[in-house]
Amino acid sequence: MRGTAEDPLLAAAMDTAIAASVAVHGTTSPNPPVGCVVLDAAGEQVGVGATQPPGGPHAEVVALGAAGDRARGGTAVVTLEPCAHQGRTPPCTGALLAAGVARVVYAVSDPNEQAAGGAERLRAAGVEVLAGVRAEAVRRGPLRAWLHWARTGTPHVTWKFAASLDGRVAAADGTSRWISSAASRAEVHQLRRRVDAIVVGRNTVLVDDPQLTAREPDGTPLDRQPLRVVVGTGAIPGDRKVFDDAAPTLWLRTRDPRAVLAELAARDAVDVLLEGGPRLAGAFLAAGGVHRVLAYLAPTLLGAGPAALADAGVSTIAEALRCEVEDVTLSGGDIRVSAVPTPR
Amino acid sequence: MRGTAEDPLLAAAMDTAIAASVAVHGTTSPNPPVGCVVLDAAGEQVGVGATQPPGGPHAEVVALGAAGDRARGGTAVVTLEPCAHQGRTPPCTGALLAAGVARVVYAVSDPNEQAAGGAERLRAAGVEVLAGVRAEAVRRGPLRAWLHWARTGTPHVTWKFAASLDGRVAAADGTSRWISSAASRAEVHQLRRRVDAIVVGRNTVLVDDPQLTAREPDGTPLDRQPLRVVVGTGAIPGDRKVFDDAAPTLWLRTRDPRAVLAELAARDAVDVLLEGGPRLAGAFLAAGGVHRVLAYLAPTLLGAGPAALADAGVSTIAEALRCEVEDVTLSGGDIRVSAVPTPR
Repeated sequence: MRGTAEDPLLAAAMDTAIAASVAVHGTTSPNPPVGCVVLDAAGEQVGVGATQPPGGPHAEVVALGAAGDRARGGTAVVTLEPCAHQGRTPPCTGALLAAGVARVVYAVSDPNEQAAGGAERLRAAGVEVLAGVRAEAVRRGPLRAWLHWARTGTPHVTWKFAASLDGRVAAADGTSRWISSAASRAEVHQLRRRVDAIVVGRNTVLVDDPQLTAREPDGTPLDRQPLRVVVGTGAIPGDRKVFDDAAPTLWLRTRDPRAVLAELAARDAVDVLLEGGPRLAGAFLAAGGVHRVLAYLAPTLLGAGPAALADAGVSTIAEALRCEVEDVTLSGGDIRVSAVPTPR
Repeated sequence: MRGTAEDPLLAAAMDTAIAASVAVHGTTSPNPPVGCVVLDAAGEQVGVGATQPPGGPHAEVVALGAAGDRARGGTAVVTLEPCAHQGRTPPCTGALLAAGVARVVYAVSDPNEQAAGGAERLRAAGVEVLAGVRAEAVRRGPLRAWLHWARTGTPHVTWKFAASLDGRVAAADGTSRWISSAASRAEVHQLRRRVDAIVVGRNTVLVDDPQLTAREPDGTPLDRQPLRVVVGTGAIPGDRKVFDDAAPTLWLRTRDPRAVLAELAARDAVDVLLEGGPRLAGAFLAAGGVHRVLAYLAPTLLGAGPAALADAGVSTIAEALRCEVEDVTLSGGDIRVSAVPTPR
């Protein structure tokens, strides 16, 4: 097992690197939130680092700086293949070679043609390179949105909804507080904190007047607030909470998902959370603009009230938008489903 | 652990007893489907039995018959507290005492006042008695419906539905074959085989024309068919499949859940499966006539089409019908949720 992708020492180091990357998720776009752990020649963790905000050092450089001389002859464990190109900062491969590491272990390859080639460059310089350690955890976790962005040049969109077990997002009279559990709501606020933008339709602003910020359960704002994005034509009263000064807000006078994603891409929004309403979600799904569905299904039944999804362009069962379930967990009594739409 | 509810030998024997009871589930109503394993004095399994159809011997008598003389000084492991009363058959406590078992181990107590007292009777005769082994598995499993029946005198109703992740039971044009996976559909046919009755509304018969039988995936009828029950006033054409000769069919000219349950109780239907449609389910839920919700949620999105549930008497979120999730599993890609409505 030692020295292979299943080596428990390497998997443990990668888990530390993943945790470090999760901690900076939301502060690095359009750069990837990467984590790095440096092991000395004896296998001891001597440095941990994560990507700093754009213009700042990459994860490898931070971790190598922490490790100092102890990196020599050791191993760098990184969530993403180290870059080989000169961007706003020098290539990480250079830093790794200068530090004298004997081995580089990473989880996923860089799909970006410009930055790729890091593994090759390291091998050419005599460094042992091992890829694929905890690859699935990284691919589905902290690098998920960025990998999509690197492949497609457009933001990764997670459509999140909270509904009753029979698919209603509110009762017949429009009341919806609270369908989902306190644990689920807290989790969504942590998710908001990590994304670059939250998107809702104009109707949601008119009807629900959400603030769309990332908050503690007691209402205290979290330390990071994503861009709030309202889409749709027609007037919106200026006193809506989404226009307060708690976070920046962008109002796009379109409901065309492709136009919305292009505007967000131009603003380096890599990781986007689509929060409502049912018709906007339908438009995004119909346009292939949803890359993950995150459903919080409360164990409650309503039998009336608006449905979670409308106008998704499906008129008969053969046209159903199929997904693959990635993960089902319980969240404070709710059923939390993560699913990925199958490309048609 | 030995001789306690956690003794692995006893738990293993109880699992065998549970399996024996599951095999007869659906053939014993209004009697409970009980399983029994007899261990000899050395702890070896020497007899297995399950409740025979009404009028036939109970599980203990069958297992003791299989064990013969080897039961003497041994242990009887039973899913339900042995009965102490003379019904259509003599009391099981008498049979256990006559066989000379030294110990009786059971999972759940008999809530039926007339039959209860078995444990006391055995103890009074010098037999060691241990209760609670694998109690939760039995309570939620093979004896669930019967325990409800014994406590309330009315049938246990499982409302089963198959819907998309957004809560639709069919697409906009009414097509619904197939929303759920082949594995889920096969599981529902096995469930049908075990219940005493399947209930649908008249509208389901008019619109979907289901046969409501228990079948193999290739259409072959299974070995047992429950009573088919259609509820609702108004005409139904005689050529509907539910009126074929594949199984008996009862047409109740009412949609009142309480009247339906009373009629079913009079026919000794202990375990009832409610299969549709949305408004009939709403009426049952509103009347407190659903004791378990079994949802097969396909990882698919429709955005239009009929909802799984309608007219459940909920007009605002505070009136939501809350449930407790018992179990969430994947069934051929579908998310299978078992939940129990919380009494209001």
